[in-house]
Amino acid sequence: MDANTTPWIQIVQLEEPSLKDNTADAERVLQSLKSRLNVSAIDIDLSLLKILPTLLRKTQFNLRCVLFKEKHQWVLIDIQDARGTQLCAGLAVDLGTTRVVLRLLDLATGRPLAESAFDNPQEKIGPDILSRIHFVEKADGLRHLNELMISGLNGAIVDLCASQNLQPANIYAMAVAGNTTMTHLFMGLNPRWIIREPYIPVVNNPGVITAEALGLQVNPRARLLIFPNIGSYFGGDLIAGVLFSEIYQSKQTCVLVDVGTNAEVVLGNENWLIACAGAAGPALEGGVTRMGMTAGPGVIDQIAVDPDTLAFDIHTIEDLPPTGICGSGVIDLAAQLFLSGMIDVRGKLLPAVCSSKIKTIDGLSHLVVVPAEKSATGADLTISQADLDSLMRSKAAMYTILETITGSVGITPQELHAFYVAGTFGSFINPESAIAIGMLPDLPRDRYKSLGNSSLGGTTLALQSDAYHDQINQIRERITYLELNVNQDFMNRFSAAKFLPHTNTKLFPSVTVVQNSK
Amino acid sequence: MDANTTPWIQIVQLEEPSLKDNTADAERVLQSLKSRLNVSAIDIDLSLLKILPTLLRKTQFNLRCVLFKEKHQWVLIDIQDARGTQLCAGLAVDLGTTRVVLRLLDLATGRPLAESAFDNPQEKIGPDILSRIHFVEKADGLRHLNELMISGLNGAIVDLCASQNLQPANIYAMAVAGNTTMTHLFMGLNPRWIIREPYIPVVNNPGVITAEALGLQVNPRARLLIFPNIGSYFGGDLIAGVLFSEIYQSKQTCVLVDVGTNAEVVLGNENWLIACAGAAGPALEGGVTRMGMTAGPGVIDQIAVDPDTLAFDIHTIEDLPPTGICGSGVIDLAAQLFLSGMIDVRGKLLPAVCSSKIKTIDGLSHLVVVPAEKSATGADLTISQADLDSLMRSKAAMYTILETITGSVGITPQELHAFYVAGTFGSFINPESAIAIGMLPDLPRDRYKSLGNSSLGGTTLALQSDAYHDQINQIRERITYLELNVNQDFMNRFSAAKFLPHTNTKLFPSVTVVQNSK
Repeated sequence: MDANTTPWIQIVQLEEPSLKDNTADAERVLQSLKSRLNVSAIDIDLSLLKILPTLLRKTQFNLRCVLFKEKHQWVLIDIQDARGTQLCAGLAVDLGTTRVVLRLLDLATGRPLAESAFDNPQEKIGPDILSRIHFVEKADGLRHLNELMISGLNGAIVDLCASQNLQPANIYAMAVAGNTTMTHLFMGLNPRWIIREPYIPVVNNPGVITAEALGLQVNPRARLLIFPNIGSYFGGDLIAGVLFSEIYQSKQTCVLVDVGTNAEVVLGNENWLIACAGAAGPALEGGVTRMGMTAGPGVIDQIAVDPDTLAFDIHTIEDLPPTGICGSGVIDLAAQLFLSGMIDVRGKLLPAVCSSKIKTIDGLSHLVVVPAEKSATGADLTISQADLDSLMRSKAAMYTILETITGSVGITPQELHAFYVAGTFGSFINPESAIAIGMLPDLPRDRYKSLGNSSLGGTTLALQSDAYHDQINQIRERITYLELNVNQDFMNRFSAAKFLPHTNTKLFPSVTVVQNSK
Repeated sequence: MDANTTPWIQIVQLEEPSLKDNTADAERVLQSLKSRLNVSAIDIDLSLLKILPTLLRKTQFNLRCVLFKEKHQWVLIDIQDARGTQLCAGLAVDLGTTRVVLRLLDLATGRPLAESAFDNPQEKIGPDILSRIHFVEKADGLRHLNELMISGLNGAIVDLCASQNLQPANIYAMAVAGNTTMTHLFMGLNPRWIIREPYIPVVNNPGVITAEALGLQVNPRARLLIFPNIGSYFGGDLIAGVLFSEIYQSKQTCVLVDVGTNAEVVLGNENWLIACAGAAGPALEGGVTRMGMTAGPGVIDQIAVDPDTLAFDIHTIEDLPPTGICGSGVIDLAAQLFLSGMIDVRGKLLPAVCSSKIKTIDGLSHLVVVPAEKSATGADLTISQADLDSLMRSKAAMYTILETITGSVGITPQELHAFYVAGTFGSFINPESAIAIGMLPDLPRDRYKSLGNSSLGGTTLALQSDAYHDQINQIRERITYLELNVNQDFMNRFSAAKFLPHTNTKLFPSVTVVQNSK
């Protein structure tokens, strides 16, 4: 068995009471734990007090104690016979708008045991945050959205526990992160003011509450840490990402970019942190990732174009016949089209080069990526000029945001020490392609680091040490939120970035375009 | 309307949120309250977060906030439209073994509104603590005892609120004190180890819990402060008494004596506090107050004996025909019998003096206090020699305890600056009579102060200012518990005190006995 590495599980062998030492049972346990953890106060639930005296005497005062840290003090969550072998589990949850990911941990060691994920059941109400917030206006809308999430989680918890021969009641601690709206819906809080000027959440820092209060069917005394938000547009998932990326303790300036439903950027080091989000007014509407479908079996995620033959070398997830193209595939495609001269610096399809690959549908040019006879759908898989135009705006927005946030502290994107890419979409992006189209800066490739699901990574840390709980609040307080003003300067930068890779090609020295004259 | 005098009710007019100040609703309220109360942390319940945003906007950010203090931080219990006029109430409760007393307060001003009391419904299980603890061994015994108390309280709360045109949901804060066993039964905690060596309670300091967790039908978010105990024999009612007596901040040394089911004594001043309880081994078994019935209508509470005619001048509660004699009446009677020469210094009835007032029943001498024709019962009301012998032991025990506890710090009972008498029984005792029989020391009479129900007084204070919450814990930590060793020295003192007023009559210079030769 692993040695304990977290503070949550403590085995105590207490002195038995005597006439000389008639401290009450509860204080006997708590004093021992306080001295062990070097903390001044530990709370105990009434329901534990009810079982404590009998258990103490049955176990000859030898207990395994399960603890967690609330906002202002530690709390004793369970007591067990120290000789028992039942595992105590923790559950880290990333509450995504489209997908919810769970990671089960051994609470004593912090070691991950298993993971699972399910589509956010609120998608049946609306695919995005906005549609769900509007649904809250309906009678019982909020309760319905909340119940979808809670029952979805409860079902996933049962399955995940079963896979490890555990009961949901073995889960004693949870850490949950999501964007501000998802967190509100999870707690049953009305998010209606999040999208209305001046964009006010109900709460910034909910802290630690009981899982029971939320209707989660884990141990009834289990505690749940909810990652705080900074405001309506900067949620707990980002705080979790900053925690996981460790940029908050880096000596040199790094950036964390979470390209999910939105593009969120945190720039900083051990001294300061600046954040901004991609939704910055009408010019950027549609966001960074409007294109493409969600990654899944049969979806094209990588494309190479032979610069000589212009043949497409397509890779699909699980190598199945292609069904569509996902966001990272679109970036790959655009980069390859540009590098092989099939689109120009404005992102326009060049009929002379693409020739028979172009079809006109409804008066709009489409590039056939996979012809009907090779696709899983039996129809051509195409990308339209409009799709490419949208990508041009998205990539320009991304780069402009990076220029703006680095510029706000007097540096350029090229000076970044490390570039962390997080989020489900972001983790599939090939930096080489993203640089080729000028979406990401032309840094040495080893400065790019994919974090995977950094929100899940951050919630996992919160279940591994209480030191991270303080860090979470410190990160929250240290972040300065940069309001992106879509002013003339911003629009100038944006216009300059709407070329491949950029109007100023000196910014992208490593991007070399084949002058294809076919 | 009274101005606020407690910290619990705060009216806040908040700045409305703006793009420049997009603090979340909860933090907006809490920051204002934290600065108002000058505290670092205030918690808020999830259920309040659910109603907060709508209420804030409906009231133009003008709220009445109800707060209370938990063990480690303040907590926001309710929010209301500041223009509302509904009173917020607090409830102080003395959980007596035989009687439960409730006092309703205006939580804004601390002003008492009404009181009520009811017989402890656990009396149907057993009249004393011991019998109730034994009942816990039965299946469902603990739950049954707990439910008797909780449902008794819920009924009393409904009636008390109705008398003030309030709803139980208007009660937001409670403070409860009782002896250690009563407190355990109230919380549903098993008291079985309280009476078994080494006499260990389940908990010493339960702190503040939600009233809902105990099944109390007040506001579901109401918080309840439970006075801590020092051990099995020194309960929260005594801590409440010390708080109410203010001896903990007296420059000069005072004593607090609570003569209830047991005799409990606290000696001290602003620098130190020493406590002991009357149950000190076999010599004192039966306690101080075994005699007499509970005070009630028709019960004799005062007696004077004419020194010349030896006629009894009897006073009954509510001036009804006499039904019996209560504890304070017995002390009055014994004092009068002694002062008029009807009993000797050993407490023995003197047939030569009492003459026809003595009857022999079952071979034992009885003094007829009220003849059958004048009593409400139609039978003689008598006191037997055995009753008087019992009183002699009780009064000697009381005085010996006082001598022992004062002796432990090198003073005598005669040096006490103030003598506070608390408890339902204690409050009826006439110090003159108690001094005459040598039960209490022969101090100037103005040093005796009757506190009434000091447990209720202490719980009332806890609802008037949070400063008292700190005092409660400081008192608890400052008290040294003096274990009464029934050793030779104690038995010598006890034997010397088993005379009227005492073997050493110099200790009672004001007690003058009529040498009655009739």
